[in-house]
This record gives sequence, structure tokens and C-alpha cells, in this order.
Amino acid sequence: MNERHNIYTPAARAGRQKEFAAMDNFIYEVPTRVYFGRDQLAYLGGELGRFGKNVLLCYGGGSIKRNGLYDKLAAQIKAAGLTPFELGGIDPNPRVSSVREGAALCRKHKIDVLLAAGGGSVIDCAKFIGAAAFYEGDAWEILTKKPRIDRCLPLVTVLTAAAAGSETDSFGVISNPDTNDKIGWGYSVMTPKVSFLDPSNTYTVNAFQTACGAADILSHIVEVYFAPGDTFYMLDAVMEGLMKTVVKFAPAALKNPTDYEARANLMWASSWAINGFISGGADHAWSCHPVEHELSAHYDIAHGAGLAVLTPRWMEYVLDEKTAPRFKRFGVNVFDLDPAVPAPTAAQAAIESLKEFLFTVCRLPANLTALNIDSSKFPVMAQKACRLGDLKYAYKPLAPRDVENILNMCL
Amino acid sequence: MNERHNIYTPAARAGRQKEFAAMDNFIYEVPTRVYFGRDQLAYLGGELGRFGKNVLLCYGGGSIKRNGLYDKLAAQIKAAGLTPFELGGIDPNPRVSSVREGAALCRKHKIDVLLAAGGGSVIDCAKFIGAAAFYEGDAWEILTKKPRIDRCLPLVTVLTAAAAGSETDSFGVISNPDTNDKIGWGYSVMTPKVSFLDPSNTYTVNAFQTACGAADILSHIVEVYFAPGDTFYMLDAVMEGLMKTVVKFAPAALKNPTDYEARANLMWASSWAINGFISGGADHAWSCHPVEHELSAHYDIAHGAGLAVLTPRWMEYVLDEKTAPRFKRFGVNVFDLDPAVPAPTAAQAAIESLKEFLFTVCRLPANLTALNIDSSKFPVMAQKACRLGDLKYAYKPLAPRDVENILNMCL
Repeated sequence: MNERHNIYTPAARAGRQKEFAAMDNFIYEVPTRVYFGRDQLAYLGGELGRFGKNVLLCYGGGSIKRNGLYDKLAAQIKAAGLTPFELGGIDPNPRVSSVREGAALCRKHKIDVLLAAGGGSVIDCAKFIGAAAFYEGDAWEILTKKPRIDRCLPLVTVLTAAAAGSETDSFGVISNPDTNDKIGWGYSVMTPKVSFLDPSNTYTVNAFQTACGAADILSHIVEVYFAPGDTFYMLDAVMEGLMKTVVKFAPAALKNPTDYEARANLMWASSWAINGFISGGADHAWSCHPVEHELSAHYDIAHGAGLAVLTPRWMEYVLDEKTAPRFKRFGVNVFDLDPAVPAPTAAQAAIESLKEFLFTVCRLPANLTALNIDSSKFPVMAQKACRLGDLKYAYKPLAPRDVENILNMCL
Repeated sequence: MNERHNIYTPAARAGRQKEFAAMDNFIYEVPTRVYFGRDQLAYLGGELGRFGKNVLLCYGGGSIKRNGLYDKLAAQIKAAGLTPFELGGIDPNPRVSSVREGAALCRKHKIDVLLAAGGGSVIDCAKFIGAAAFYEGDAWEILTKKPRIDRCLPLVTVLTAAAAGSETDSFGVISNPDTNDKIGWGYSVMTPKVSFLDPSNTYTVNAFQTACGAADILSHIVEVYFAPGDTFYMLDAVMEGLMKTVVKFAPAALKNPTDYEARANLMWASSWAINGFISGGADHAWSCHPVEHELSAHYDIAHGAGLAVLTPRWMEYVLDEKTAPRFKRFGVNVFDLDPAVPAPTAAQAAIESLKEFLFTVCRLPANLTALNIDSSKFPVMAQKACRLGDLKYAYKPLAPRDVENILNMCL
């Protein structure tokens, strides 16, 4: 199961199938209304007011207080005559304790609508708060037992980081430090009703987090682009366009953090990388995300940094005669490599281009050692990634031994 | 105003502005749920039933009776316990008389939901039937007076042609033969709630209509791609991917009408060419569509055939030193032309490539003479196209004399 998608294929409904039909059927639906651009918060009060009077503002470590966004939101809520409540301190790998706390606030204050101001972590957390507010059991069960969830508080988001794409999808990832678990799951009712995407709200995202965001966006596309079986040409072309966009504008945003064009391209790409559009009928398991979740669960590293280390090594591991043409196409259409070069050589060059982008241009840590991670937990993480991530249905099926091999290549 | 879009820019809200800001703000929303693929009609009854019991089935000249789709729809409606009513005979350039007739049926039979089975004409007509059912004045006023419309019957579509993109947008085009008027307009409430896109439903579309559809899809993208001012790189890349898709798969569908992959790529491209996604903040007037509407209004020709004749001549007319780089980019990224060729030469080659595609590969009529159209009405049509199409705000501003010149190039 893709970690974040709102594409429902017959295979997903019927339980995973071993064989993938070319161009499977799918259902596409992205009902989120997006206000894209500068200074659109004048619409916020009206949008919140559609759902009721009591608003729970969810945010993270307080950057929105430092950069003035908090005051702007408070002013809009007040001007619309709404009653604000708040839950701050949501962690970068959001914890189930925040979900529990938020759900309790919703019940106590009869919250009508959630306002998540932040990046993917805050928005993911708010999604599960909205579901947990109506759920009778403990919030963690929603991730572990995956019950049927038909009700969720309406969610409005104000995005402050281009990365996770949570602003237009139905999924979220929640951590439980007690059990070293980090689990992603989704329900269509959790999809945000309205999202405000103002690229200038990402001007204050620092270089490391900007780079992590780029790696995350790129990974979301790579996970879908490398699919078993036939692919959907139109969506391949769209994916290549989105990947080129990230490769072009991440360096521009790193060079000049207030480059509106660069921030806008990264922000809109982050949404479209994962809202389900590019997946079409693709229904294979993702390869790097489940492994990265193990890294983050055990070491609390930035998700994008983990993906950056993993992705090119996974590529090297799955590269063979059969997969080389696809890697060549990736290199030619994303990194402008010479189409005349034979597939095996071109495929290697494509992976080198990706490494150059991630580690030289974006200056992300190039290996797990640089992230203070050693091999001690590789066996445990490999087992769990295969189980939670259903990795036998990945682009190239992965067993725990394969995942361990890939992790060792990352040291 | 773009003819079909659900992107609302500040410029559109505030009335047209002379200057276009780079990367204008916009609102994006496409709430349609799409069932894409084969044999998904089992979901039809449930989807219709969400909105009520009385269904008005709208269709065209009866091809759905010949190819069996009509019987499948009737069976699903019956199985769901719903009550069917019907309006057949909707014309290829749908007429306001059908809108009036449909609205009267809705009121008489207390219709709860519209089911449009057909291509853009049938869906466009159903949209205005849904609005007219609640409108107190004559239906034609909705096009001419453009009143505020907040209410429309819910619309479910079953698409049978890849062309207009009406299945996921808010717009429609209606003709009034009494006045030789053909006017496009839209309201967000007219956007279909659910659309069934089964590529195999287009297997019986003949070669000419398949080619017209390809020309229509391509034109929708070209109209947006050639924009005054700066453009949104990510959306440029997506547009190039969509255009490549049409150029690649139209010949395949023409060669083998039951090529599922080709029909699927054309069908999904038709939706994304015009549902607002590619427009971003672009808010310029379209160039060829308003002129083609005059051709169709006066001569009742196929919309795609008119666009095919007009588009390359419009390109030749607006090609100059300033626009050449954009035309070169179009040629390089859509027709794989050599990027080393200088802009003026490459731009010419790009237009020649488009002509080759439309007139040789797709075998569409290459000029107006072949469509039995002479110059007698050019002055009248040019005046009206400029007025209805707001052509002074096009990629390159066009006055009636310019439109006449372009039409003369099409003879």
C-alpha cells in the first residue's frame, strides 16, 4: 500500500495481488480547495466559519510565532468572530501523545474545525486528531488496527514547508516512541477541506530543511515512477516534469531563500507528488519509505535526510539488466543525460546524477554514519520494514536480507 | 476569461487587468470523483442514489444505443431502484433548445440528479440544464447575462469521447442557431460530482472524431502554454508532458481504435488539459477558441476540425522575435526538435511539426476551403470573436483586423 494516496485500486480493495495488470483501474479524487499564492489569508476566516465556531489551531515548535504567521492567523480568526483554542509543540516526527492530547481538546471544547499551520508533521498530526476525536478507543489503535473511520473533523491547513504533501492527501505518519513504531495510514475523510499554500511562508525554512523537503518530494515521485509492469505514459511524463522541477528549483531556493518562483515550484510540486494523481492505477509497495520510517523511528532523524541516503543505494541494489532501461529513462528525462548512451552505463550515470544532486548540490548527509547511525539495529529494522511496508510487492521485491544489504551500503 | 477553467485569479475577480503579474495567485479546486478504467459502472447506481431517486439520462444522437452503453446504464439505474427519465438527441454543438427542454423535464419530473452519457456536447448541455432547472428566466440568459448561479442539479457523467474535458471542469459551450451565437461560460456548481472514464467506451469513436478530439485537447493546452509574462515552470513541464502524450497516442488510436493504452492516455489527458490544473495563475484570454466558436456557430463544423485549421496559422501570425523562443521550446519539448537550432528557425520547424501532426498524421482538413467555408463572413466573425473572447488580452493581443488576417491564412 502506498503510504500516502487516495487512489483506490481494485487490487488495494481486494487485498494485495501478486501480479499487476497494466494500467489498472483507479478512483481519483482530490477534493481539497487550494488557495495558492501570496496574502490569501483574507479568505481564512470565511473558510473556517463554513464548518463552525470553535477552531483548534495546531502547530509545531513555535516558528510560526517567530515569523509572524501565528499573529496573522489569530487576527483572521478573531475578525471572523470565531473562538480559538490551540495545541502547540507538535514534534517533527509527530507523536501519538499529541494526537491523544488534541483529540481530548476537541472533545472538551467541542471543536468544529481544525486549523493546522505547519509542515507535514503538523498536518499529519491534525488529521489523526480529527479522526481520534470521534474514535472510542485509544488513538494509537487507528494506526495499528486500522479500523473503519468514516468521520473526521474538517481540516484547514496553512502550509509552511514544501515536503510531505500532506496538504492535499488523505494520509499521515505518526510515531510512538514507547514502541519505536512509526506508522503511516490514511482515510479519505482526513483529506484537508481547504489548504492555503503561500510560497513566501517557506522563506524562513532553513537550508537543511529545504534540502530535506526536496529529497522527500523527489522520493515520493521515485517511489511511484519505478513501478512493476507497464506504466501510464501520460503520468510518466508528468512525473518527469515534477522531478525536473525539484532538481531545477531546490538549488535556487537554497541559494536565495526568498526566491518566490523557486519556493512556489517546490511547494506546488510537493502537493502533486503525492496527492494520488501521479499514481494512476499503480498499486505496488513503496521501497524506501518503509525503511526510512524505521530509521526515523529508532533515531528520530529528519525523514528527508533518511530518504536521501537510502534512495540512491536502493537504486544501485535493484539495478540490473531488466531495470536498467527505466533508470536510463529517469536519467535522460530528469537529468538531461545523453539518450545515445547504452542503458547499463546510462543507468549508473543517472544514479550518480541523483547523488550529485542530493549530496553535493543540496549538501545533505551522504551516509548513515554522518547521521550517527550504525548497523546495530539493521536486522530489527529490516524485518519490520518488510512487514509494515509489504516490501515483497515493491518494484523489485525485497526480503529482510535485501533491506539489510541496502542499509549496509548506506554506512 | 479562459473558456473552461475553475481557476479563479484575482485578475478574474477584479475584472481583467492589462498587465499580468508573474505567477499570479489562484484558487485550485477539482472536486469531481473519477472512476477511471474498465467496467466500473457497478458503482454508478450507488453514486446516483447519493443524490436522490429521479434520474434524467441525457445523451446525443443514439450511438450509446448502438454500442450497448445505453442498456448498461439502464440496467444499473434499474438495479439501484432509481426512476429513469431521458433526454436524447442532444446535438454535437449543443443548442439552447435542448437546455430548455431538459430544464422543463427536470421541473416536471422533480429530477434529483443528471446522468450525462456522451462527449463534451452532452455534458456541456447537461451542466446548463442543471443550472436552468433552478433559473427563473429563459435559459439563454445564463449565457448572455451571466447571472449569479449558486444552484445546479448534481451531475454524473459517463464519458464517451476524449476531447472537451467537460467531465472534470465547470464550463460548457452552448449554441443558439437563431442568432448564430455560440457562447462558453461556467459556474463552479456545474462541475460534475462524479465522472466515469472508461477508455473502452471510446473504441467506437471514428477516425475523424478521434482526430478532432486530439486537436481539441492539444488546443486547450496550447491556449494556456502560450501565455503573456512569466510562466510557472512546473506547469510548463506538465503541459509539455500532456502534449507529448497526445502526439504519441493519437496516431496509435487512429491505427488501432481498440488500443486501450492509447485511448486511456488520450482520455485522461483530455481531463487534465482543461480542468484548471495547468492554468495555475494564468489569466490571459484564449486565442483560437473564440475564433473557432464563430466558425462552428456559422457553419456547424466540428470544433476540433476548426481548431486544427486555426492553430498553426495563429502561430504563424503571432510568431516574431519575441515569441520565437517559446515556440522553439514547444518544438523541442513536444516534437523532440534539436535544441541546438536557433530560435527563429526552430520556431518555424515547430509549427511545421504541428501541421504535419494535424494534417498528415491525423488527416484533418488542412484549410477552411476543405470545410466549405469562404471569406464572406470573416469580418462579422472577427468582430464577434474579439468581443466575446476579449482578444485584446490574448498571448499576443488581437484586433478584428488580426483575426481576419488569420482567417484569410486559413483558406
